[in-house]
Amino acid sequence: MSPRRPIIGVFDSGFGGLTVLKALLELVPDAEYAYFGDTARLPYGSKSVETVARYAVEASHFLESQGAKMLVIACNTATALALDRICAAAHVPVVGVVNPGAEAASSATRNRKVVVIGTEATVSSHAYRKALEERGLQAREKACPLLVPLVEEGWVEHSVTEQVARIYLGEAFADGFHDADTMVLGCTHYPLLKPLLRRVAPDHVSIVDSAESTARAVSAHFQELLPDSNSVEERRSAPRLKFFATDSTEKFRRLGQRFLGLPIENVEHVDLKE
Amino acid sequence: MSPRRPIIGVFDSGFGGLTVLKALLELVPDAEYAYFGDTARLPYGSKSVETVARYAVEASHFLESQGAKMLVIACNTATALALDRICAAAHVPVVGVVNPGAEAASSATRNRKVVVIGTEATVSSHAYRKALEERGLQAREKACPLLVPLVEEGWVEHSVTEQVARIYLGEAFADGFHDADTMVLGCTHYPLLKPLLRRVAPDHVSIVDSAESTARAVSAHFQELLPDSNSVEERRSAPRLKFFATDSTEKFRRLGQRFLGLPIENVEHVDLKE
Repeated sequence: MSPRRPIIGVFDSGFGGLTVLKALLELVPDAEYAYFGDTARLPYGSKSVETVARYAVEASHFLESQGAKMLVIACNTATALALDRICAAAHVPVVGVVNPGAEAASSATRNRKVVVIGTEATVSSHAYRKALEERGLQAREKACPLLVPLVEEGWVEHSVTEQVARIYLGEAFADGFHDADTMVLGCTHYPLLKPLLRRVAPDHVSIVDSAESTARAVSAHFQELLPDSNSVEERRSAPRLKFFATDSTEKFRRLGQRFLGLPIENVEHVDLKE
Repeated sequence: MSPRRPIIGVFDSGFGGLTVLKALLELVPDAEYAYFGDTARLPYGSKSVETVARYAVEASHFLESQGAKMLVIACNTATALALDRICAAAHVPVVGVVNPGAEAASSATRNRKVVVIGTEATVSSHAYRKALEERGLQAREKACPLLVPLVEEGWVEHSVTEQVARIYLGEAFADGFHDADTMVLGCTHYPLLKPLLRRVAPDHVSIVDSAESTARAVSAHFQELLPDSNSVEERRSAPRLKFFATDSTEKFRRLGQRFLGLPIENVEHVDLKE
């Protein structure tokens, strides 16, 4: 029997990280995936640093116990608030979503002025502003707390969502940021709103999807994990997926499909003891 | 020293239960109050029975450990999904919000047709329908998942909230329920939307606020808890309040004031080990 392919552990508070997994399946098909959604305790976006860090470290330990050889923190809030704590607690390489997003914004922008939209917790942490300023960019961060519930309601092309987006983006592209030429989607729910946000954002703005940027960063690291002995046949077969959720597995299957764009099978319930 | 007044423990997943506490302070000023908001794990409204029941039983044990002589489950989701489990685990009387709400609806309605609005989990449990049908009423339950995030965004009089409410209530008062004459606010966030919902609901509809009905139910039971030796002076002094939250105490103070309508002091962080 050929050796198993390396397992990449992907973690999010719920379903949003499935947009990152979707991008990973396209760019890194040579892996197996274990996805952990902490659906019993979502959302993280309105919670404090201490709470999010504790939950994220527990999730990372769980994924390592499932054999993950690399961890992808597919949650902007967990990355923004707790990446340092997760890295300190992990025994394998860890990739978050903030630095890849900032790097992609740095490549996309011409006038070095960038708007980032995200959850309240991500914005309050200023993790994006820090990452963008380190790259010599000016950043405006804007919390958009209603966008996640609107996506979860399925209103991704609804007139109400468009009005809400107009209000939020109107406030973001103001006061010296009218001419920002790049907008980072700093929440893994937002890729589902990309067509709507494309219409609402000023025409000259490039939209950076941190899910895609993160998948590219993972792809760059992944080759190091591949054992030489892996046969070409084994590597070329379809990626294997396993899902873990802390709340209802039925709901995970049902809602998750919208984010992943594929049917979801093989969901196991996990009860993390704090 | 005169004996202490009885402590009533009030529990919610977050801030909404403060609307019940507000009603209690008016109707039952002779008590002390310990309020527990499970803010690290909110919201409960989108979670499964098993998860909500486990969290609610932990919270009840915590409030009993703080000396509560009566428990008020000031959360529609926890009441709807887990009242039986909480009652079985508790050593003191327990009052939930569903039966008082159903009782008030039964008094208010003339044509015995009632609409209930609430979270996804409350509606899926059909706890209100059951409680209303037991009283000989016909019930239509409607999940309104965007209303809680809109209240938490502070948009209680916003045109977007009005449009969302029109969509939800339009669907609720349809298909044989056009003439329902009573609407139960089956979520403790909704009292903050009462003026807006009053405008959007059909004119002939009476609105039942389960926070008020619950306070009346507690008041009826409370006299039994009063020790005879309590001096009139002691009973007449202002109620004492203590707050416990599982996430940031600063955020609890800040957001909580909007729900309670009073400044919030004396918040302690609690870390429930599962």
